[in-house]
Amino acid sequence: MNISSKYLEEAIEHFASLPGIGKRTALRLVLNLLKRDENNVKRFADTLNHLHERIKSCKKCGNISDKDICGICTQNSRNHSIICVVEDIRDILAIESTEQFFGVYHVLGGVISPMDGIGPNDLNINSLFERIENETTEEVILALNSSMEGETTNFYLYKKLEPLGVKITTLLKGVSVGTELHYADELSLGRSILNRLPFELGFKK
Amino acid sequence: MNISSKYLEEAIEHFASLPGIGKRTALRLVLNLLKRDENNVKRFADTLNHLHERIKSCKKCGNISDKDICGICTQNSRNHSIICVVEDIRDILAIESTEQFFGVYHVLGGVISPMDGIGPNDLNINSLFERIENETTEEVILALNSSMEGETTNFYLYKKLEPLGVKITTLLKGVSVGTELHYADELSLGRSILNRLPFELGFKK
Repeated sequence: MNISSKYLEEAIEHFASLPGIGKRTALRLVLNLLKRDENNVKRFADTLNHLHERIKSCKKCGNISDKDICGICTQNSRNHSIICVVEDIRDILAIESTEQFFGVYHVLGGVISPMDGIGPNDLNINSLFERIENETTEEVILALNSSMEGETTNFYLYKKLEPLGVKITTLLKGVSVGTELHYADELSLGRSILNRLPFELGFKK
Repeated sequence: MNISSKYLEEAIEHFASLPGIGKRTALRLVLNLLKRDENNVKRFADTLNHLHERIKSCKKCGNISDKDICGICTQNSRNHSIICVVEDIRDILAIESTEQFFGVYHVLGGVISPMDGIGPNDLNINSLFERIENETTEEVILALNSSMEGETTNFYLYKKLEPLGVKITTLLKGVSVGTELHYADELSLGRSILNRLPFELGFKK
């Protein structure tokens, strides 16, 4: 693209640096902003300008928060002795939306990935062990994604948690609700049949 | 999504207001920005903050420009008596990238669309006629998209340009290069066969 304005080009570069946004899409976004009222765009700019200072990471679990400790960690009605370890705050949002979990979380901020140069020390792993040491923890749920890196991290954490005598669980994996069996992948179907449940339990919400 | 930070929510709202970006994608974009260096995001914010004052619209043709008159309008080597009328600056970029046109442009900024409440007065139509009146114009190319609204606008302009005695042309429409004929739409294939060319001409670049 041969763009006639270096400022337009600069704005396109910024948008195109975001994941999943190419140069053409970026141009469309900038043109959309240019058509808008200037104040609207200035508010957008202001939000970005204060992003890092306003949005904090919870000092306890790593969840995103406006305060030092997030809403989940300060909630007394939750069971603070069950810690669910997740990769990313999006996983917290996903689990919270099921309304089936009332423990607390710990966000690793990624998974171990030697290919990308991410080792255990680059993740919030030490703070997890500090939490387990200083607080009464009965159960740790390893809820990382089932990618190669997620499974590696699960296994790494399992090996380090085992000696502490805490109960370690992981998410049940199986065929999704509503999947037609002949379309299901072999791994999920295999786990569904291996870990089959008494009929009544399988229908419990 | 039940988000734990009102500032995060605000940032998501801004990104999700852009065309083609939903709330989940917006969240992914904001999380990506949060992982970056603060200064990088501040530069992004600065670009947005000055967007409207820095990026101008060429006073002659409506193209985007850093100056009052754009690079195309100031270029002496171009043929200023041929004006190509387009809907949007993206169309200028597309035509420029073909390196086959050496006239100048006029950006309407949209097309006549009664459904969206856009009439001829909401577009840069008057300035087009001022240009034709004040400058020597030999040819006006109507290069609007072949949507219903684009064709309506083409026809409206044609009717108003006809009495001025200027040559009015439009883009040739036909089957795209590389299309298999049995996949081509009927309208394009129909025009390709109606407006068939002498064999040698059809292969000219």
